[in-house]
Amino acid sequence: MTNIQKNRIRNIKEEIREKKALLIYNPKNLYYLCGIEGFGAVGLLTSEKFTLFLNENDYELAADKNLAHEVRVEIYKKGIVKDTVKEGLKKGKISEIFVDNIYGEALRNLENVIGRRIEIYDVVERARMLKTDDEIENIRKACEIARKGIKLARKIYLSEKRISEHNLAAEIEYFMKRQGSEGTFEDGILLACGKNAAHIHAKPSDKIIDDAMLVDLGAKFSNYFSDFSRTFTERAEDNEVKKHAEFIENLERTCIDKIYTGMKISEISKFADKKIEENGFKLLHSLGHGVGLDVHELPNINNNSETEFAEHTVFTIEPGIYKANRFGIRFEDTCVIKNGKAKIL
Amino acid sequence: MTNIQKNRIRNIKEEIREKKALLIYNPKNLYYLCGIEGFGAVGLLTSEKFTLFLNENDYELAADKNLAHEVRVEIYKKGIVKDTVKEGLKKGKISEIFVDNIYGEALRNLENVIGRRIEIYDVVERARMLKTDDEIENIRKACEIARKGIKLARKIYLSEKRISEHNLAAEIEYFMKRQGSEGTFEDGILLACGKNAAHIHAKPSDKIIDDAMLVDLGAKFSNYFSDFSRTFTERAEDNEVKKHAEFIENLERTCIDKIYTGMKISEISKFADKKIEENGFKLLHSLGHGVGLDVHELPNINNNSETEFAEHTVFTIEPGIYKANRFGIRFEDTCVIKNGKAKIL
Repeated sequence: MTNIQKNRIRNIKEEIREKKALLIYNPKNLYYLCGIEGFGAVGLLTSEKFTLFLNENDYELAADKNLAHEVRVEIYKKGIVKDTVKEGLKKGKISEIFVDNIYGEALRNLENVIGRRIEIYDVVERARMLKTDDEIENIRKACEIARKGIKLARKIYLSEKRISEHNLAAEIEYFMKRQGSEGTFEDGILLACGKNAAHIHAKPSDKIIDDAMLVDLGAKFSNYFSDFSRTFTERAEDNEVKKHAEFIENLERTCIDKIYTGMKISEISKFADKKIEENGFKLLHSLGHGVGLDVHELPNINNNSETEFAEHTVFTIEPGIYKANRFGIRFEDTCVIKNGKAKIL
Repeated sequence: MTNIQKNRIRNIKEEIREKKALLIYNPKNLYYLCGIEGFGAVGLLTSEKFTLFLNENDYELAADKNLAHEVRVEIYKKGIVKDTVKEGLKKGKISEIFVDNIYGEALRNLENVIGRRIEIYDVVERARMLKTDDEIENIRKACEIARKGIKLARKIYLSEKRISEHNLAAEIEYFMKRQGSEGTFEDGILLACGKNAAHIHAKPSDKIIDDAMLVDLGAKFSNYFSDFSRTFTERAEDNEVKKHAEFIENLERTCIDKIYTGMKISEISKFADKKIEENGFKLLHSLGHGVGLDVHELPNINNNSETEFAEHTVFTIEPGIYKANRFGIRFEDTCVIKNGKAKIL
């Protein structure tokens, strides 16, 4: 267990404060805190201690991870989490219980077995917003691979006249894997040409690429993601598309240039919204999102955000416009805030 | 919109019964009911009607989908879902509200804006358990591709002596994509050799393959998944591993042979549990799970299941045993129940 992980646990313990308990089910939250992703693992964190319940096999595997001083590891048995929480409540060692963001059905089951209301508490997810230098370095490497993927996509887009969206996506995913990427998005990379790109989450089809092309891809390095989008217009049939793409590409850069430490996140989102509306479109999705152990994590970059950009926040900016049966345009970079300013990673 | 989709909507409407309303946020549930997967789409189903809220762009894209008679499509605006539900409650047209399985945080937000408790209702997920012939055909094609992937994995495993887990996984994923697969699991295929396979969800590492190898992969065809696991022992250093693998492979086939229409799901799970315990191990995960639009969907195949195997249920059987720092063994096939018996797809 690293000193960074020890610090993370200590910080969350402080946030939890006296007699409160946090149940952690999200494997990425557990990985963040102690470097372990056990199958079916559950964490129970109080201001006093951190108990990690692992299945028998993972319990043995964890033995050499040097967790002993910071984490109490127990073998998971059916009912053990419930019983531990109930005992804590009975003995007055726990007064309130929280859980990270599990599914509604799991939440209701948990409330039923424990017999009281449990609130969702995103304290670990919020801690994950601010990255350490090591995390930023991992994301930077994931960005490096993604950028090579974008470059290859562009090269094939310009040179191959008979390739389908699906097959181009397959080439890029394979290339990025061979460049060391551990994976990409859940549905693979998004890649669509012409009117197909009008779907915001267009999946690659068997259509032969013969028009403007939108590609949205990410790589993963040492468990950390990157996320980029580009729209290539060299082969666009419609000159309007080139004009709009130029507008969105400029807007993306302008947004990134404007971001500074302490700026309200909602401010940049409202700025982009306004610019897009002035151009006769609407921003139909968030302007961006945090990136890290998840492709989409905190902070949400939208008009309702109540957070500020802080040093070492890693996030994307991705303005996009879409016109049904015509086109889809999006530009996106993964950025970090350092020394007061946003810069592309 | 197909007749099958119309029937699905009609069936769910009947299940919902009078004055109840179901909010549908899961894109796969929406796709299942009306063939549309809009970005940020929400469905509101009552015994009377099905309203689909789509963003402006998807609204236009949906225009040619011929939804008109079965689905009322409205443009999504902030607050519109809440307002529609509140109006239904006020006018007495809705008496109770349910939602499909969203995250706890989203559930709590929804309860706050609507101002009453909302229960999770898995009525669409349960309907999805029983597949139509078309769905089974899609899954069969996904199985065909996955089986080719397994075959290639085995060929490379036997012939290439200097390939890493990561690079072998990359080759197989690329091959399956070129064979028409739309994607694989969220974390890519699972592939691990020797003691690495002792992690139940082992991700491919840079280790050169030089021992027994576990591969767990799936393909996706026309939105439907398949899921298979194999353990190759030809290069195993430990003869125990070969013996255990034979046991698990036989157990998997025996389980599949025993399953019949009307059998309690818990019964087969308990049978496998017992056999594995007799051999000195424990089954640390479910014996299997449903497969369809999700890799893991209903039914859960475990000791606590209260469902029975029914005609046209598609599911996997995947017994596995794991020994820390030694090995991991798992065999898995995707099956369907037809004419009273389970058969491998």
